[in-house]
Amino acid sequence: MYENADRLCVNTLRFLAADMVEAAQSGHPGTPMAMAPVVYALWQRVLRYDPAAPSWPGRDRFVLSAGHASALLYALLHLSGVAAADAAGRPEDRPALALEDLRRFRQVGSPCAGHPEYELAAGIETTTGPLGQGLATSVGMALAARWKARRFDRPGFDLFGHDVYALCGDGCLMEGVSAEAASLAGHLRLGNLCWIYDSNRITIEGPTSLAFSEDVAARFRAYGWFVEEVEDAEDLVALESAFASFQESRERPTLIRVQSHIAYGAPHKQDTAAAHGEPLGAEELRLAKRFHGWPEEAPFRVPEEARAHLGAGLGARGRALRETWEADFAEYRRQFPDLAGEWDRMGSGGLPEGWDADLPRFPPDAKGLATRESSGQVLNAVARRVPWLLGGAADLAPSTKTRLTFEGAGDLTPEDAGGRNVHFGVREHAMAAAVNGLCLEGLRAYGAGFLVFSDYARPAIRLSALMALPAIHVFTHDSLGVGEDGPTHQPVEHLASLRAVPGLLVVRPADANEVAEAWRMILELRREPAALILTRQPLPTLDRNRYAPAAGLRRGGYVLADAPGGPPEVILLATGSEVGLCVAAHETLLAEGVRSRVVSLPCWELFDRQPDAYREAVLPHQIRARLAVEMGSPLGWAQYVGLDGRVLGMDHFGASGPFQDLRERFGFTGEAVAAAAREVLAQHRGTGLVPGGPRHGRVAAEEEHA
Amino acid sequence: MYENADRLCVNTLRFLAADMVEAAQSGHPGTPMAMAPVVYALWQRVLRYDPAAPSWPGRDRFVLSAGHASALLYALLHLSGVAAADAAGRPEDRPALALEDLRRFRQVGSPCAGHPEYELAAGIETTTGPLGQGLATSVGMALAARWKARRFDRPGFDLFGHDVYALCGDGCLMEGVSAEAASLAGHLRLGNLCWIYDSNRITIEGPTSLAFSEDVAARFRAYGWFVEEVEDAEDLVALESAFASFQESRERPTLIRVQSHIAYGAPHKQDTAAAHGEPLGAEELRLAKRFHGWPEEAPFRVPEEARAHLGAGLGARGRALRETWEADFAEYRRQFPDLAGEWDRMGSGGLPEGWDADLPRFPPDAKGLATRESSGQVLNAVARRVPWLLGGAADLAPSTKTRLTFEGAGDLTPEDAGGRNVHFGVREHAMAAAVNGLCLEGLRAYGAGFLVFSDYARPAIRLSALMALPAIHVFTHDSLGVGEDGPTHQPVEHLASLRAVPGLLVVRPADANEVAEAWRMILELRREPAALILTRQPLPTLDRNRYAPAAGLRRGGYVLADAPGGPPEVILLATGSEVGLCVAAHETLLAEGVRSRVVSLPCWELFDRQPDAYREAVLPHQIRARLAVEMGSPLGWAQYVGLDGRVLGMDHFGASGPFQDLRERFGFTGEAVAAAAREVLAQHRGTGLVPGGPRHGRVAAEEEHA
Repeated sequence: MYENADRLCVNTLRFLAADMVEAAQSGHPGTPMAMAPVVYALWQRVLRYDPAAPSWPGRDRFVLSAGHASALLYALLHLSGVAAADAAGRPEDRPALALEDLRRFRQVGSPCAGHPEYELAAGIETTTGPLGQGLATSVGMALAARWKARRFDRPGFDLFGHDVYALCGDGCLMEGVSAEAASLAGHLRLGNLCWIYDSNRITIEGPTSLAFSEDVAARFRAYGWFVEEVEDAEDLVALESAFASFQESRERPTLIRVQSHIAYGAPHKQDTAAAHGEPLGAEELRLAKRFHGWPEEAPFRVPEEARAHLGAGLGARGRALRETWEADFAEYRRQFPDLAGEWDRMGSGGLPEGWDADLPRFPPDAKGLATRESSGQVLNAVARRVPWLLGGAADLAPSTKTRLTFEGAGDLTPEDAGGRNVHFGVREHAMAAAVNGLCLEGLRAYGAGFLVFSDYARPAIRLSALMALPAIHVFTHDSLGVGEDGPTHQPVEHLASLRAVPGLLVVRPADANEVAEAWRMILELRREPAALILTRQPLPTLDRNRYAPAAGLRRGGYVLADAPGGPPEVILLATGSEVGLCVAAHETLLAEGVRSRVVSLPCWELFDRQPDAYREAVLPHQIRARLAVEMGSPLGWAQYVGLDGRVLGMDHFGASGPFQDLRERFGFTGEAVAAAAREVLAQHRGTGLVPGGPRHGRVAAEEEHA
Repeated sequence: MYENADRLCVNTLRFLAADMVEAAQSGHPGTPMAMAPVVYALWQRVLRYDPAAPSWPGRDRFVLSAGHASALLYALLHLSGVAAADAAGRPEDRPALALEDLRRFRQVGSPCAGHPEYELAAGIETTTGPLGQGLATSVGMALAARWKARRFDRPGFDLFGHDVYALCGDGCLMEGVSAEAASLAGHLRLGNLCWIYDSNRITIEGPTSLAFSEDVAARFRAYGWFVEEVEDAEDLVALESAFASFQESRERPTLIRVQSHIAYGAPHKQDTAAAHGEPLGAEELRLAKRFHGWPEEAPFRVPEEARAHLGAGLGARGRALRETWEADFAEYRRQFPDLAGEWDRMGSGGLPEGWDADLPRFPPDAKGLATRESSGQVLNAVARRVPWLLGGAADLAPSTKTRLTFEGAGDLTPEDAGGRNVHFGVREHAMAAAVNGLCLEGLRAYGAGFLVFSDYARPAIRLSALMALPAIHVFTHDSLGVGEDGPTHQPVEHLASLRAVPGLLVVRPADANEVAEAWRMILELRREPAALILTRQPLPTLDRNRYAPAAGLRRGGYVLADAPGGPPEVILLATGSEVGLCVAAHETLLAEGVRSRVVSLPCWELFDRQPDAYREAVLPHQIRARLAVEMGSPLGWAQYVGLDGRVLGMDHFGASGPFQDLRERFGFTGEAVAAAAREVLAQHRGTGLVPGGPRHGRVAAEEEHA
């Protein structure tokens, strides 16, 4: 069944990868050398994939969760002739990865980065490297495929589901995020998901027996997975048989454990940790080539026969599959033009016509409502008109108000993958990674939780940003407003730490109308993730006739309230729940004859990219009497208030108690803001300088831990 | 065997807790009402604990990982008469929790916070609430007990090990961190660890069947645990029998799954999500009391008979155990005075005499060495003299250079818990939580990994800070210096996001001698955690005759280099690897006749707490021509450079390539720093104002994602 041409392909992959690492003098040769036959068997015989059309939506997805084995993926994309694709996914008349790209592995500007990076080359389905992330992302992808099949497939047209494969090692399986993801996938019975576990018994510190002695197969059976065993990674027949078993068992996800030898064939480094993360060295590589009967003196050797064999296998099979799919889809389009149109719209990253027609406007209301509450209303108003907007919470939908309640929204369950409400369970990290996977499949997805627990999900949020995915991370209970649950549940550092993530829009609306604008802005994003930060407690809905329109949110920051009679003397800046305090203080100051200005700054990232003139108009450089107010870490606010301003923030943890008592205790009231503004102004009318620079409430911190 | 007095105690606990929630009109009644018999059986019959001496080192530890059930713990501490303890752990002549404290559940200033907070009352062994954390912390505690037994026990003196119990629910077990911790505990065969799983089939969104259908018992068996089943949480005999089985099986950790009914006895809310997180309501509580035959009109009822029964059980048993222990320890002290002295010293939080005698001094060296490398040398020099300093890495000891290599350091293995090198596996999150557990047991512990993966461990790092534990989190590979591994492995936002954590000292030394000072400072901490941030790449070792002594690190920031001839014209600020760039730029500027100053700022938190005069001396308020340089997010630097200064930072992700190429590409060279300093100075010599305020290299960011 398997012949010399297969071995030729396997060794071409193996040594392309090893040569790449050797040329770069950097990288991970061991896993590629061991896993070459596994990915070869999968791609050549099993994967529904057309190298000529890498964005074909019906393709199966392959995720290299063991991202350090990137050289193997690059070798595979090159050898199988995967075409480049333009931004719209249209194939181009050039390879995704030329041999020259492989030669520049791990060099600046090369698409062959140290770990696979989404969009650097067609065929890289997601960014991997941080362990466990690829696995958890693959669950989102498999879920998306199930959802798409349920929504779009029609009798006679099984077009829209596909399978998802992910290759992982011991590292991925030790990470908690993969455990969460596996439990979720088992629960949802994602029969279209297959994880391939490279069991090589080696980690960086040495044999896995140092730290990892669990029975992985039994664990996965406990999650509700099928488990297959392949005793020898070199056994192409056994591998193909295992994949066939996966394809026959559609009721549960499958784990295929493959026993392998890291750096197989390297006489001194095989089965050692030394083969993991550094080049073999010229001599050892030569000996490995000798072991495999590979020419020793021809680095980057790509036999034409190997290309041809993959073309005749994967290439021909994939083309036929795709052409059939396209013919079927043409017929589908004829029979179901509306659904096909919806599919097109979704695939283009757009939104349906009139998607925002039901966006509510909230009338002025001094009592107001929590922004989690207005967000729930807005989300439901939008989601009703955007069928592919879906998501859920980490067991907190009732608290985060993220449940879609309109008719037909439904639950996404093991029995019915068409629902719009996903129950992620108490699995914040896997949720965020699954949201990435859903976005990679073209859905608009959100995950929700308490802001303090955004920490649990940070590695996946980072990947949203690194991949430039329009993922939506909703975080409620955003401050001391959490009240009685106390400091374990009160975020302090989380706004700052999310703002530090490059490319992530952190949006903290000040009232219900800013919430509506926030959702409008976020839904229109195509290449940026957002963290939407919402309160537990009610906030007044501002009178937008009296104050500036909430549409100012789209510029990140805007002058909400100003004083007549000249330029402002003091500027009050805030986000979210503290904007209302600044408005109250502003009214007090106005009555006292002080010209204060209130700047609502719901999204720093958007504000910072406004033209100089706009930013100067909002925050005139000469006006240095500035006060920022936010119930969180002051870190970062100095970029708006400078050395001469002041921050009313928290550089200490909160406390357990009713929110009204905590506000008093920690000084977050309109009166306290007005008092601080008067102090800032007095200092500026005096010396104009504040010796020693700003201090941010250390006293409270020390008191706290006394 | 169990009689009315037991039922009386159980119901006292149950309804004290429910009354607390009702009085606060906030909290979680369901789990306390269900778990009252479980904690009662444990404490009354099993736990080695003397309420009169809550800091007795020989006690068993009880961790309420389901921290939302705090009311139950408070009720228990009150009813069993746990004494208050002073800062040194000496019992005081007053209860840890008076009834009045219980009445003020969840009020500002009450020790009965929404979730249990370490140090708010004796008997709270660790802060819990963020799900999974208590479980993972308990693994560190059990490990510590094993280690202490191995180090201090002698034939005839089995004094220093103890057992650790943790109570958790479905939420804790869905979290990835608990999966990591369970796998690690199974691997290490922590036979002194017992997790009690409250299986009530309810989560916040509804029945666990919505999201959690795995076979938990089978999963734990796969980890190598014993699993016991208790069919009915009300069955005190079955509970005691399960605990007895745990105590007999010392070869593996034990999971006891207890089937329970949330809010047991509440006629309308039992077995519903509504019983989880809000008060039952007066009428429902009344009906629940009726069901249990409890007086309906006497909130906070504490029958004297219940107190007496616990006193005669737990109290008498615990006192006897403790007195025996103390008598044995007195004899132990006689026979092994050195070991007893070491035990005392460790218990007091101190360090051995001469612990820092071997701290290396590093000679000037232009080539220098990586700070991970110098850190490894310093750590080994210190650890040799501090026997209870131990730790490890998340499978990265060879890369983080945290392995203790001196004779006798050894590995901590399932067979020998006395080693000093812990193999945590690829489990960053469980590692950080276990480090917290080790610290809670009085050991000095460190965990190490790559800085970019600090994200995986943030929830546990936050608890280090919230508990004011002297935990040591070592993070290497701290910047673009990671090079070829690329943006998935290059931290950008991590310094900023760690600096945002209140109470965490983030220390990024600039050269080998600052590393030595950093370890000296960190080892002397007693109530603060530290994150030590180290490079992968070599840094020059500065000539401390030419530049200021590294001891300046202890003040967080100091003038490293200055110019003769008057006050500085421009100030260059940096941490870690960028300090050397500033020194190079400084030398260039000096040669050009520019009076520049270099400020090394390795620990912002320490610098910010220096007296005004010191900070003013380092950063004179009038000198506004300032340039900060750090290969990470600029977030926060404006607090030192203000609106008129500039930050050479990264608000975009990095790239894959050799570090030297990345430095050039992203502008982190001595020449680039000098050029930026000239620009800043020119601006200040001109207008003195920089219109529009600072911008932080957006161009590079956009280019990155183009």
